[in-house]
Amino acid sequence: MSNSFALHPRLAADTVALGDWPLCRLLLMNDARFPWLILVPARPDLREIHDLPPADRATLIEEIARASAQMQQAFKADKMNVAALGNQVPQLHVHIIARFASDSAWPNPIWGQGQGRAMSEAERAERIRLLQPLLLR
Amino acid sequence: MSNSFALHPRLAADTVALGDWPLCRLLLMNDARFPWLILVPARPDLREIHDLPPADRATLIEEIARASAQMQQAFKADKMNVAALGNQVPQLHVHIIARFASDSAWPNPIWGQGQGRAMSEAERAERIRLLQPLLLR
Repeated sequence: MSNSFALHPRLAADTVALGDWPLCRLLLMNDARFPWLILVPARPDLREIHDLPPADRATLIEEIARASAQMQQAFKADKMNVAALGNQVPQLHVHIIARFASDSAWPNPIWGQGQGRAMSEAERAERIRLLQPLLLR
Repeated sequence: MSNSFALHPRLAADTVALGDWPLCRLLLMNDARFPWLILVPARPDLREIHDLPPADRATLIEEIARASAQMQQAFKADKMNVAALGNQVPQLHVHIIARFASDSAWPNPIWGQGQGRAMSEAERAERIRLLQPLLLR
């Protein structure tokens, strides 16, 4: 138990931090295969959505909706996938992934499907450009 | 487009209906391997969480938290998995799955891991008994 929030080292290693929203830290997953954000509520000692107090849950679903709507529009995604799993990294975090009928894992969920591929600098810059409306707090 | 809610036939075929909450229909997935609920917002023409109006999103996250907390307690789950995917069944639905370090898919997500196994009558009755606190509206 701890009184302050610290991002789990595995999430820090796998992502690029884009900023902090009222509740969540916004992370871009370093995987060129899928436009993939991770929202991490910046509160200590959370594992489950139901561990959050109700006011923070209300904020969480609004931050999920904001990220999901913007990603779907910016990337012209066929479907958004939203998931809080945490079997391997116990710190509460929410995956928001833009999916396409043409992507390498479709129609399956992305986990356990093939190997991740790190973004090139150009890929990362283009992805962040498309996510620009999300960079405002 | 339609003005009334109808459960997708695939969700109806794979589940047992447990009741209706203020927003969602509560379904028990017919898979003996995992305690697995599905919440379906009973509104027409939804695909994404961000398609819901904000008031319904607030209700959705509370219904997710209620189901998740009760399942974790009743089944003594090690971790809850919560996901809205919908690549195969486009109607918006939220999976809530009790996971165990001893289960057949751990630590992976459950999708695409092995074959489902229908519950026996006794398994279904026991699962519903443990979920009894969720059967109240």
